[in-house]
Amino acid sequence: MNNFIFQNPTRLIFGKGMIAELSRAIPTDKRIMITFGGGSVKKNGVYEQVIQALKGHNYVEFWGIEPNPAIETLRKAIILGKEKKVDFLLAVGGGSVLDGTKLISAGLKYDGDAWELVRKGAYSDTVPMGAVLTLPATGSEMNKGAVISRHETQEKYAFYGNYPVFSILDPETTFTLPPYQVACGLSDTFVHVMEQYLTTPGQSRLIDRWAEGILSTLIEIAPRIRENQHNYDLMADFMLSATMGLNGFIAMGVTQDWATHMIGHELTALHGLTHGATLAIVFNGTLRTLRKQKYGKILQYGERVWGITQGSDDERIDLTIEKTEEFFRSLGLSTHLSEENIGEETIQEIERRFNERGVAFGEAQNVTGSVAREILHNCK
Amino acid sequence: MNNFIFQNPTRLIFGKGMIAELSRAIPTDKRIMITFGGGSVKKNGVYEQVIQALKGHNYVEFWGIEPNPAIETLRKAIILGKEKKVDFLLAVGGGSVLDGTKLISAGLKYDGDAWELVRKGAYSDTVPMGAVLTLPATGSEMNKGAVISRHETQEKYAFYGNYPVFSILDPETTFTLPPYQVACGLSDTFVHVMEQYLTTPGQSRLIDRWAEGILSTLIEIAPRIRENQHNYDLMADFMLSATMGLNGFIAMGVTQDWATHMIGHELTALHGLTHGATLAIVFNGTLRTLRKQKYGKILQYGERVWGITQGSDDERIDLTIEKTEEFFRSLGLSTHLSEENIGEETIQEIERRFNERGVAFGEAQNVTGSVAREILHNCK
Repeated sequence: MNNFIFQNPTRLIFGKGMIAELSRAIPTDKRIMITFGGGSVKKNGVYEQVIQALKGHNYVEFWGIEPNPAIETLRKAIILGKEKKVDFLLAVGGGSVLDGTKLISAGLKYDGDAWELVRKGAYSDTVPMGAVLTLPATGSEMNKGAVISRHETQEKYAFYGNYPVFSILDPETTFTLPPYQVACGLSDTFVHVMEQYLTTPGQSRLIDRWAEGILSTLIEIAPRIRENQHNYDLMADFMLSATMGLNGFIAMGVTQDWATHMIGHELTALHGLTHGATLAIVFNGTLRTLRKQKYGKILQYGERVWGITQGSDDERIDLTIEKTEEFFRSLGLSTHLSEENIGEETIQEIERRFNERGVAFGEAQNVTGSVAREILHNCK
Repeated sequence: MNNFIFQNPTRLIFGKGMIAELSRAIPTDKRIMITFGGGSVKKNGVYEQVIQALKGHNYVEFWGIEPNPAIETLRKAIILGKEKKVDFLLAVGGGSVLDGTKLISAGLKYDGDAWELVRKGAYSDTVPMGAVLTLPATGSEMNKGAVISRHETQEKYAFYGNYPVFSILDPETTFTLPPYQVACGLSDTFVHVMEQYLTTPGQSRLIDRWAEGILSTLIEIAPRIRENQHNYDLMADFMLSATMGLNGFIAMGVTQDWATHMIGHELTALHGLTHGATLAIVFNGTLRTLRKQKYGKILQYGERVWGITQGSDDERIDLTIEKTEEFFRSLGLSTHLSEENIGEETIQEIERRFNERGVAFGEAQNVTGSVAREILHNCK
């Protein structure tokens, strides 16, 4: 096991009716800015619950943080927040609203343009932020990461701010999510776990089992959720799995990969494809391309998660990759670039961007531009 | 899943050589009291590493916190700490030293006798505390619980103070532990998980799998540790499992039991038996006595952790209980009271104490004095 330092201070407030806890979670002397997405929270009752809980609090609202939050939008929120002397942020929405709000919370403490913070990659001087999560997927509710886009240049980068001081997760808020968003959330969670799990075998027996525990849970609940998105316990398991998939718990003492994500981000930047949908495509390419490098862990994953124990190693790996692709398809997602009308031009552009950045991604830092191209060819 | 609020602020500093991090983990302006047990840390090099790291810091040492830390000893530490105006505590040792130090950290802020705090059960106004853990077992390094004994009356109660601000875990410190202590640590961890897992089935698929993940890890590593206690990765998995077994992670959204612990504490109070050793005995009695109430989860546990899938439900439960008892025996621990020369008199005294307290323990709050007697008869 590798040495590590772990600390996750976020207060997780989980369950039915827990949005009411907001009244106690934020001190009444705070000048709050509540950040929202496009307005679905007005249809599902979340907005009403939030406003009800914040009676007696002092707040302004900022609307319009889009999927793949854009610096162009966030700059406006930062201007409003500075003007109103905001000293607490409350993000209400999915991972994009939370991610965007992490950059706002840093931008409020920064004099320059917030895009500079994104290019720095990290900034820990922030205004405290809480969250009401409505879409399980990114894990943003219990980590300090965010992904910020810049429309004018079609760029998308990771940024690290601070942990939310609290996050409220009420599974009932997910009952009315569009099924496609649920599918993308399941895919996103699955690949988050894979980025931390499908690496060198034998690093930690415990952490391997915890990662496998999330994967098995997702595989068990996904078909049931497609049948009934109003089942509380199913949606609670989904919501908790998404949070636990990217809050540092399954990263303790082990190496990580993230090459699939780096390629997926480019697909979103270039084509606007939903993040989870990009992963459902690219991950199969990663598995096929890096099967030799990752064969030990693919065998373990196949055996423990899919119960594949028969056949030669190569046959087991083939079947494991097949099962994984089938899982993404069962979510109703594409697993080939061609299904999304993405072709050779995009592949070449991604290779070019990787080469331009001059860094190689992945656990073994060997996913260069040409390996990225190979991965994309393997999921054409 | 039940509603829950989870927050665990402890900074976990894990790995080889990490005791050196102490120099940065405690500000140099603090007046530290370092608390120790009986002196094993002077033999295994831990003391030297701690003192080396704290060069330039201001500290006093308090020695002699015994296994099952006694209020009689802790009162002395509190007197010394008040005299020296201590404003930071560093516990160096096993769970007993950490538990005792949690009471000291509350006692330093309290004017009355610290035993009053134990009888209150909780006190959150505390002096901050860090820890260097040398014995994986209690989970005290990442929770706010402690168990405090009072020798004059042979009493032993749980007390809740605060989380350590940091805990340093270097698996190398466990290489020279007496094998009996390692066995008791494995037993303690196993039953901690069971207290949170062997309850009503179907509460959370994810948390079930995480609990099963710790159990499977313990079962896999225990025989290997008995062969070679100097294997770093084995001891790292053990150490991490012990911490994750009782830091709130596998308690999210599920009910808990703790009846086995309540009975085990009495055996320690009356006979001085090591905590983990009491659990290895009592847990089998609990399983046999409550097999009807817990049959659904015993079946799941048998199937997922022991791979038991053949036979009638009753046969599978029998085999699962047998396998569990075998596991404790494989650690070299007793699984019957008679092996420790504990007889009917003690059973009656424990029944009397349970009745006197007038509360019933366990998930279903049905472990009264007479049920405790039945449990003890089932592991006589």
